Amino acid sequence: MSSSPQRRLHLNAFLMAIGHHEAAWRLPESDPNANLDIKHYISLAQTAERGKFDSVFLADSPVLFSNPERRPSGKLEPTIILTAVSAATEKIGLIATASTSYNEPYNLARRFASLDFVSGGRAGWNIVTTAGADAAQNFGLDDTPAHRSRYERAAEFVDVSTKLWDSWEDDAIVADKDVAIHADSAKVHVIEHEGRFFKVRGPLNVPRSPQGYPLLVQAGSSEDGKDFAARYSEAIFTAQPTLDEGKAFYADVKDRVAAVGRDPEQVLILPGIVPVIADTEEEALELEAELERLISPEYARKQLAARFNLEPEQLPLDEELPDDLPSEDEIEGAKSRYTLIVDLARREKLTVRQLIGRLGGGRGHRTFAGTPVQVADTIEHWFRNGAADGFNIMPAVLPSGLEKFVDSVVPILQERGLFRTDYTETTLRGHYGLPRPANQFAVEKDSTLVSAQ
Amino acid sequence: MSSSPQRRLHLNAFLMAIGHHEAAWRLPESDPNANLDIKHYISLAQTAERGKFDSVFLADSPVLFSNPERRPSGKLEPTIILTAVSAATEKIGLIATASTSYNEPYNLARRFASLDFVSGGRAGWNIVTTAGADAAQNFGLDDTPAHRSRYERAAEFVDVSTKLWDSWEDDAIVADKDVAIHADSAKVHVIEHEGRFFKVRGPLNVPRSPQGYPLLVQAGSSEDGKDFAARYSEAIFTAQPTLDEGKAFYADVKDRVAAVGRDPEQVLILPGIVPVIADTEEEALELEAELERLISPEYARKQLAARFNLEPEQLPLDEELPDDLPSEDEIEGAKSRYTLIVDLARREKLTVRQLIGRLGGGRGHRTFAGTPVQVADTIEHWFRNGAADGFNIMPAVLPSGLEKFVDSVVPILQERGLFRTDYTETTLRGHYGLPRPANQFAVEKDSTLVSAQ
Repeated sequence: MSSSPQRRLHLNAFLMAIGHHEAAWRLPESDPNANLDIKHYISLAQTAERGKFDSVFLADSPVLFSNPERRPSGKLEPTIILTAVSAATEKIGLIATASTSYNEPYNLARRFASLDFVSGGRAGWNIVTTAGADAAQNFGLDDTPAHRSRYERAAEFVDVSTKLWDSWEDDAIVADKDVAIHADSAKVHVIEHEGRFFKVRGPLNVPRSPQGYPLLVQAGSSEDGKDFAARYSEAIFTAQPTLDEGKAFYADVKDRVAAVGRDPEQVLILPGIVPVIADTEEEALELEAELERLISPEYARKQLAARFNLEPEQLPLDEELPDDLPSEDEIEGAKSRYTLIVDLARREKLTVRQLIGRLGGGRGHRTFAGTPVQVADTIEHWFRNGAADGFNIMPAVLPSGLEKFVDSVVPILQERGLFRTDYTETTLRGHYGLPRPANQFAVEKDSTLVSAQ
Repeated sequence: MSSSPQRRLHLNAFLMAIGHHEAAWRLPESDPNANLDIKHYISLAQTAERGKFDSVFLADSPVLFSNPERRPSGKLEPTIILTAVSAATEKIGLIATASTSYNEPYNLARRFASLDFVSGGRAGWNIVTTAGADAAQNFGLDDTPAHRSRYERAAEFVDVSTKLWDSWEDDAIVADKDVAIHADSAKVHVIEHEGRFFKVRGPLNVPRSPQGYPLLVQAGSSEDGKDFAARYSEAIFTAQPTLDEGKAFYADVKDRVAAVGRDPEQVLILPGIVPVIADTEEEALELEAELERLISPEYARKQLAARFNLEPEQLPLDEELPDDLPSEDEIEGAKSRYTLIVDLARREKLTVRQLIGRLGGGRGHRTFAGTPVQVADTIEHWFRNGAADGFNIMPAVLPSGLEKFVDSVVPILQERGLFRTDYTETTLRGHYGLPRPANQFAVEKDSTLVSAQ
């Protein structure tokens, strides 16, 4: 971490329908169908923009993720949501999750380039490999590809995508009406990619977009995930339940970034935080308790058991986790999240029922109830002690949790000089203090010119 | 065709970047980079909505389609454009082209369902199979799949998609906070599709959308294309250069629709028309001539030769087409368009140079220069004589050609009682006078209930 006085933290709003707490939809205040209402997302993004957040973010998986009985499970496609949001906002970055296992690079690269044009340079892509047999079965497969193989495909997918995004040089378009030349075809490149997973000729049918290409974000924290992040990502979302774990992760990833020859300051680490905020600690704890009471333990136990490859009956609600759980190696999806949950339960000697309560809000992210000052203190503490470049804010209840954060926590962070009081840039990379990437095809040409001089 | 006095025609605005004429970008008035400017598309759609059009439409192919030197060739992804447009319009329908050869049904069905939600029931899908080796080479193939095989895949793709769109019954969501039931899982169906091209488990992760599913549009006019349209489409865009050909096509398709047991009145046929409109015929002809002068004949000849599987030198500019052209059977893509172009050239004994001039505007669609009354007369004539249920308006130059149509032709059609003076419906299907489709899973259940009574 840098200790320069100008160091500012970054804030991303992770928009999860009606809130990150699985029972948020059951609160009297909640619209239980807001997950399908574009006005809901627009309003959330406008709130985050009022709070000068760097970005909003939508998670995603191409599958009906949870039991539709228990919570709002329908999810509009994220790039569609964020395109509509872009029309109603001006500055805030727009990060969508999309899967490298179940898309074609040509289509996805084009979709993100289009979002980057439409939003004037505010697009970001959270690159996921998508675990789970249920998703695989929507795409002709019987089971999910192996973890390692998914990451190998993801790496090639990103390589193809950056080639496509760079296939038009920035100055390719000349638009000379008199001589009837629209683009200089010497600056529009076929890419002729041929690899293990993809064969793509190119060029892309969209010129290079305002940011060059979307901000590349990643959230896997397994060994494969961290190596992938070190090589490709510019921002990392991560679940770190304690400061010590946060510091270890931060140092580990920054080391891996340096090891592959990239600048560690150009890869930002944003742990997730699920704050339940009220004006007094007592009120905050009461809100948290109300949410826990609204969780259906039987359903949550089933989800937990599935994560552990167990039957629900093998997890009695009022006992601690069994000793003989599978190791991380035996888990095919969300490996690091699995270990994190097991460690949390063992460390705090939680019963299954208590563990469910803790996970209901943040699914392994750092959750706590407190006052605005307490939340700001925690953020500052992590930020100043080598655990974070910023935070992924995951309100337990939406829109109220985000409004509360923007109206009560952001002003404290601004007063302390930790967070911007207004936008100074217009693009997502600009907000995060990251440079616009060079074009790989143009760079080659420039080097030739330089060496020829 | 029905002769009821209330019969009204339908108008779709086919938005082709800076205009359907390939040289439109070279006019002094044109912004040569408007193809990448979302404000341009929003403004066009608002103009069409001011004219009470049923819909706007964007063509598409996942490939850099034409030589980037000669015209603006970058194309933002259509569902992204139309999502942004939806936020800035209220009533007009939004039809996007997407390929069944180069998408996965789960992803595409979800994207259109999302657009239908975001737009409040205004989404339409123009189903294309995508000809051309250049597109195939962006998706791991060496050459385009055979014409017949592409249509077989398209049919299964649409079958899977309608199953996914119907996988949530309309009343599946109960959102009962007290009993903690969000959706009735008995009304959310796995589809377990398993066919020649696809294996998809489902359900979709988006509930049934406002229109049930997007309006299904089709534009292929080959034998396979017409059969596909008869079976699946609700609106058909077609290129018909003469009234007689238009009538024959109209009768042929309506017969095929009836033959598969569907109601011919529920499949609307909209020929394309490329009007070059001015207040006097002389001015209109001068504008048309100016556009033809701006075409580069060498480039156009290369395109024409490629369509014919010939070298450019085999098409001398000032001679008629050679006699020994390939038959339609030997052409793998855009079969009917090929025959239409050859027939046009032979019928009017056009030289290659003259043919290029004629195709520069409409690529085989009916083009003509005239006054607003002349354009309205032609539209009425086709509409009243069994050749059209409406028109696909393809302005040679945008935005001016659309503005001129809306301001000068639409009022004439309205005065004649041929076209709506305001919207009476809120959905795309509503504008076209088509019913919301029944849910295939709910229907089965209802039949069971009925027969059990």
